[in-house]
Amino acid sequence: MSEARFRKLAVFGVGLIGGSFALALRRAGMVEKVVGIGRSQANLSRAVALGVIDEVAADASQALVGADLILVAVPVQQTERVLQQIAVHLEPEAVVTDGGSTKRDVVMAARAALGDKLAQFVPAHPIAGAELSGVDAAKAELYQNRIVVITPLAETAPNARLRVEQAWLACGARLTTMDPERHDAVLAAVSHLPHALAFALVEMIAARADAADFFSFAGAGFRDFTRIASSSPEMWRDICLANRDLLLAEVSGYRAQLALLEQHLQRGDGIALERMFEAARTARNAWLSSIKP
Amino acid sequence: MSEARFRKLAVFGVGLIGGSFALALRRAGMVEKVVGIGRSQANLSRAVALGVIDEVAADASQALVGADLILVAVPVQQTERVLQQIAVHLEPEAVVTDGGSTKRDVVMAARAALGDKLAQFVPAHPIAGAELSGVDAAKAELYQNRIVVITPLAETAPNARLRVEQAWLACGARLTTMDPERHDAVLAAVSHLPHALAFALVEMIAARADAADFFSFAGAGFRDFTRIASSSPEMWRDICLANRDLLLAEVSGYRAQLALLEQHLQRGDGIALERMFEAARTARNAWLSSIKP
Repeated sequence: MSEARFRKLAVFGVGLIGGSFALALRRAGMVEKVVGIGRSQANLSRAVALGVIDEVAADASQALVGADLILVAVPVQQTERVLQQIAVHLEPEAVVTDGGSTKRDVVMAARAALGDKLAQFVPAHPIAGAELSGVDAAKAELYQNRIVVITPLAETAPNARLRVEQAWLACGARLTTMDPERHDAVLAAVSHLPHALAFALVEMIAARADAADFFSFAGAGFRDFTRIASSSPEMWRDICLANRDLLLAEVSGYRAQLALLEQHLQRGDGIALERMFEAARTARNAWLSSIKP
Repeated sequence: MSEARFRKLAVFGVGLIGGSFALALRRAGMVEKVVGIGRSQANLSRAVALGVIDEVAADASQALVGADLILVAVPVQQTERVLQQIAVHLEPEAVVTDGGSTKRDVVMAARAALGDKLAQFVPAHPIAGAELSGVDAAKAELYQNRIVVITPLAETAPNARLRVEQAWLACGARLTTMDPERHDAVLAAVSHLPHALAFALVEMIAARADAADFFSFAGAGFRDFTRIASSSPEMWRDICLANRDLLLAEVSGYRAQLALLEQHLQRGDGIALERMFEAARTARNAWLSSIKP
């Protein structure tokens, strides 16, 4: 057995993120045993049936016995409560990471909940979501070539960070480090805002008396634009609330951008419209080229 | 040779829409010869090389000699100018259709340009776009199972309508009929608004001094949400201008929707946020189920 391996992984919240982490570490031969814990017994039983976890833990105490790697993958508003449970039973050599899409709140929750075990916690955000949720959506290759942002604390033990980074690397992820504030500001623009915009558009159309007419003429553009509006409402409620100051700044900036668009339309200013569209296309295509393997 | 076949198809604008129409009719054995005409000689030469068209017509006169089916597939602001050229040379048995994404302006252009040949024109909108443009993006299966909206005029000759519908059906499309006003109102919401929103978001981020930082943390959600922001700026400028009253109404409605979202965020109203997100997800998933084969 390699020194890098983990004896026991405990996953709090066995959904898309938690389940995929377990599957990826299993496939990499990085973990001997996986236990899961969560709110839905049906989902946990399904996770056992699918081979994502070996067994269901009845409580945090049972989950943490002998566990040397813990992943918290719950809607972010539950992070503090889960970390409180973890703090009581966490073994000295164990390390804890999470999969939350916001990091300032997770770091605050860790400071509030973990006490002298704070050094064992390494916050992480795998940029690898999907509009699907639950353990049925989990897959071993979810993190392959995806970015995982690590936002270490000043208190984080170097060895804890190393162990957690080994785990994410074994999932196939590419690691990068940011401070929680910058992480939340960047993700507010490129992830939280688009999700809010997609939910808002679909709900606006769905609320119309003749919504069915509208949907029946929606094509592939609408389908892809709104894919993220099929994401978990609870998870996104929590993200929006956790990051609400920075998200509000982005929504406000975007409303100003739409006011400009309205002005171009009202004036029939084709030059300004085409300039805006061209700048968008150029930037997006440059970005796409940069991420292609 | 079946009676339903066409002797010669003339395509004005051999891009994604025009080229795919030619390829689909060829594959269906519905057309003997295809000529193309357009602004870019390079694109037309490429269309010949790819076997999308048989030859390039030097002008409208040459294109229309012997042509019994004409497709106008140009950015909509050019429709009137192209129809004026067509009007001069159109043979009595020929029928004309178009691929414009807006229909009120196309109908007005036809009334202004076609004179006593108006009966030969059958406006159409294939809901089958893509973010790619140019003849290289053309493919025979683009219209397979896609909706084509026909917006016939009171003056449209029944036989012209029949012939044009035969052509679109041979492309694999599903036909539906609407009046131009309703078409433009529905498409403003489910197509033109999402395109404008995607362009606006990408341009807003691209305009930042540290844009590269933002793009480097954009994931699959951002990629799909903004796919349509890689669409042709000229084509979308024209659509936005042609439909600007109805698009402005949608942009304004959407800004009000975002004001509501801001209010929920400011109040930290998780219940209202989750309700909006859940309504969106439910509606979108119901729509997806309805379009699955």
